[in-house]
Amino acid sequence: MTGAESLLRTLVRNRVDTCFMNPGTSEMHFVAALDRVAGLRGVLCLFEGVCSGAADGYARVTGRPAATLLHLGPGLGNGLANFHNARKARSPVVSIVGEHSTAHLKVDAPLTADIPAFARTVADFVRVAASADDVGPAAAETIAAAWGPPGQVAMLIIPADYSWSKTEMAGPAIAPPVRRAPPSDVIDRVARRLRQEGAALLLGGTTVSARGLEAARRIGTASGARVIVARNVARIATGRGRFQPPQVPYFPEFALPFLASVKHLVTVEADAPVSFFGYPDTPSSMLPEGCKITVLARRDEDGTAALEALAEAHMAAPVAEHEPVTAPEETSALTLESMGRTLAACLPENALISEEAISAAAKVMGWLGAAAPHEFMPVAGGSIGQGLPVAVGAAIGCPDRKVIALEGDGSGMYTPQALWTMAREKLDVVTVILANRRYRILDVEMRRTGAQGLGPRANDMIDIGRPDLDWVRLSEGLGVGATRAATAREFTEQFREAVKRKGPALIEAVLE
Amino acid sequence: MTGAESLLRTLVRNRVDTCFMNPGTSEMHFVAALDRVAGLRGVLCLFEGVCSGAADGYARVTGRPAATLLHLGPGLGNGLANFHNARKARSPVVSIVGEHSTAHLKVDAPLTADIPAFARTVADFVRVAASADDVGPAAAETIAAAWGPPGQVAMLIIPADYSWSKTEMAGPAIAPPVRRAPPSDVIDRVARRLRQEGAALLLGGTTVSARGLEAARRIGTASGARVIVARNVARIATGRGRFQPPQVPYFPEFALPFLASVKHLVTVEADAPVSFFGYPDTPSSMLPEGCKITVLARRDEDGTAALEALAEAHMAAPVAEHEPVTAPEETSALTLESMGRTLAACLPENALISEEAISAAAKVMGWLGAAAPHEFMPVAGGSIGQGLPVAVGAAIGCPDRKVIALEGDGSGMYTPQALWTMAREKLDVVTVILANRRYRILDVEMRRTGAQGLGPRANDMIDIGRPDLDWVRLSEGLGVGATRAATAREFTEQFREAVKRKGPALIEAVLE
Repeated sequence: MTGAESLLRTLVRNRVDTCFMNPGTSEMHFVAALDRVAGLRGVLCLFEGVCSGAADGYARVTGRPAATLLHLGPGLGNGLANFHNARKARSPVVSIVGEHSTAHLKVDAPLTADIPAFARTVADFVRVAASADDVGPAAAETIAAAWGPPGQVAMLIIPADYSWSKTEMAGPAIAPPVRRAPPSDVIDRVARRLRQEGAALLLGGTTVSARGLEAARRIGTASGARVIVARNVARIATGRGRFQPPQVPYFPEFALPFLASVKHLVTVEADAPVSFFGYPDTPSSMLPEGCKITVLARRDEDGTAALEALAEAHMAAPVAEHEPVTAPEETSALTLESMGRTLAACLPENALISEEAISAAAKVMGWLGAAAPHEFMPVAGGSIGQGLPVAVGAAIGCPDRKVIALEGDGSGMYTPQALWTMAREKLDVVTVILANRRYRILDVEMRRTGAQGLGPRANDMIDIGRPDLDWVRLSEGLGVGATRAATAREFTEQFREAVKRKGPALIEAVLE
Repeated sequence: MTGAESLLRTLVRNRVDTCFMNPGTSEMHFVAALDRVAGLRGVLCLFEGVCSGAADGYARVTGRPAATLLHLGPGLGNGLANFHNARKARSPVVSIVGEHSTAHLKVDAPLTADIPAFARTVADFVRVAASADDVGPAAAETIAAAWGPPGQVAMLIIPADYSWSKTEMAGPAIAPPVRRAPPSDVIDRVARRLRQEGAALLLGGTTVSARGLEAARRIGTASGARVIVARNVARIATGRGRFQPPQVPYFPEFALPFLASVKHLVTVEADAPVSFFGYPDTPSSMLPEGCKITVLARRDEDGTAALEALAEAHMAAPVAEHEPVTAPEETSALTLESMGRTLAACLPENALISEEAISAAAKVMGWLGAAAPHEFMPVAGGSIGQGLPVAVGAAIGCPDRKVIALEGDGSGMYTPQALWTMAREKLDVVTVILANRRYRILDVEMRRTGAQGLGPRANDMIDIGRPDLDWVRLSEGLGVGATRAATAREFTEQFREAVKRKGPALIEAVLE
């Protein structure tokens, strides 16, 4: 077999069975091997940022790594922004990058670049295959590194001649990763802490699942401690019947009072809250001075098991009931509020929401606690352009669940190519574009940074109208059927219709 | 003034008067300063790769740097692929990247990343501002580094608090860069070399201008030496009445015989030819064994002055006459040949062509020697996605010249957001999408790498039909009016019409 075939066998042996790819010349042997080694699904993306974001989405919903295949340094460069998000979400990803053949690296060819330097910007594990025989073992090491725990973006760089040369070696099967529960003395200590005045339990990482939240609810009820959720998590379970502790607010002026009374913070797979950006005269840490921190579970430990161990002694508490929401039928202009009501009323059970609505997120998502039980995937690393690719990966990872992408019109423009992959793979994704024709978040941030004022030239850099983006045509150009909704009723009708059918659809929701 | 205002003043003082930008929170003070410091034109791009490619195009046509303004590490990540191309084209670019405030860098915020590490992947000059007082001087140093010679991508990273803090310091005006002609003994030595059997003159860098080519024609005619052109140059003058020496072919099987008889290669702002990729059983250097190399001018020297000094002693020779080409009017399916004939017949004089037609380039561009005098900008670094952004930058740099983007349907999908900036800025760009619905170059490369065969699953990774991209809707969605041509006559009619009007237009040329 070739080195490339050894690579594919090693991937498949370790259940890495999906590869989001945008290959070039140095990856042709990998592509050819797709027909020689069974079990690896290649998913073509027309831009590398779709590959990296889709791998992030896949990992968020399955807990397992997908592979990506990118072309040389610049191809990897195009994938970095969403690899950054995957890194911050602790998503396991096996990133494979083709390199020039070793002989060719000696000449300064046009596409020659320092690929490990590109890789290290987002990855702590970077491995360059040393021979054709090394490709399989190196792949196994990369998979093990990706698994963690916690998950990480692990990079494998393969010179083309090692892909095309013969080898007898394939990489071994890796033992599945184990997250250990923290020791019992930690649990006892935390149990005491939580009964003190000003105690709060901060959930992060993998603990905001249905199971983890249920345990946290019981702990909170019995101990009297507040339960709160970290901002930057990969996936949160919510909806009717589920415990819905509040997330730490985004802006410091809300986060600081939110956390002001916390004297003891117990973290579960979470880091102490910090603000997204720094501002003049505002602290970066959101915790009050003197607040003590106790770690119940680190990012590499099983926080859910820790919560369940803590909860065992406690009684279950009743679940707060949400009034069912009725979808609005008004013919008045669409607002964030009416959009939230439609989503709350019409969201299919067990849906997965990829959320990158930026300035609109808080107002819309606030309604979804009353929706059918579902999970949502918030922004993790803050690099714009994750929403549509994460939806691609989620739909491929969970083909039996409806995926909803809630996407800003500005943020959607970083990786619109994802729509084409939705069309090609007939993915069950309903994309809602929240079209306000502004980088609205920058209106807010402009004020907050004290930059004072939007003169006409500054305003031009924030206004993304003139010309308006026509998301319906854009989507149709990429193969996904689309409609436009400008009133509450139109949005309700179109969203109902879109979730009823299987397959991709897009709604441009024009906000007043 | 603020640090941001000091930065703008330093840019404007040094004639850096255009900034392609996609700002975020950490760059708000820069944006606000656009209304306080006169003379800097902000051009908004909806994706960072458009900013970096536009700066490359601007530098290629004006010889001066533009600035780019990007947001933190991931924003810079999205710009890297086209910065790579700019680096290989030796384009001067002043790349400004906002960083978190220094206080905020101490906490691990979601968007925190190692920005200098991102920067070093494409830049040899990376400067981090050390205080508000340092912003202006650091900007001046960055501009000087960008200028070279040769030009380079120079990076300036500015923590947000240095942008918003007060300062009295602005950076100095930089002395314009000087390219020196090589010493006269080098010129004498080369003159002797060129009269020997097997001598060839390889033109690169800035020498393939109208002036440089004219000098090279006279040298070639008088000395009998072959004149050839390097592949990876920023901009080539060509068309009727101009000397049109052949470029070194792309594929090794053509480049090797093309260069087989060369015994003495004289390089002028050029490097010895190497193949783009390495292949099994094929050398990476394209020169025959034993070939001697003499450098007439390095990349930092004035190769055109050197050529003119060499040419002085020689007589002028007659220019080869090109038969004028007639535009095809057949109703048969559009082919690369008929497209080339239309372009040759209808290209406006002094046009600038941004060429990223990849597999179709050779067949189409071959016709353009018979077109009206013009210049074209080929792929320089090989990173896909430069064509449309380079056209944006060229149109802003040279508003009085018609810009034509010849773009593959596959390559166009990496940075389609450039069309929106064309619409917003009403740029005089006619984009021609060569739609063959394949990554056709990969068909060729698949064979050449010996990867043998396109099974159905491998084929799926190269076929970008299913669904077909509809470039007309895509373009209209981004604000640029578009038409589709499937016959030779349709293409001729649509191209004639598009170049007649001022402003952006797109033609999807469906190739049989």
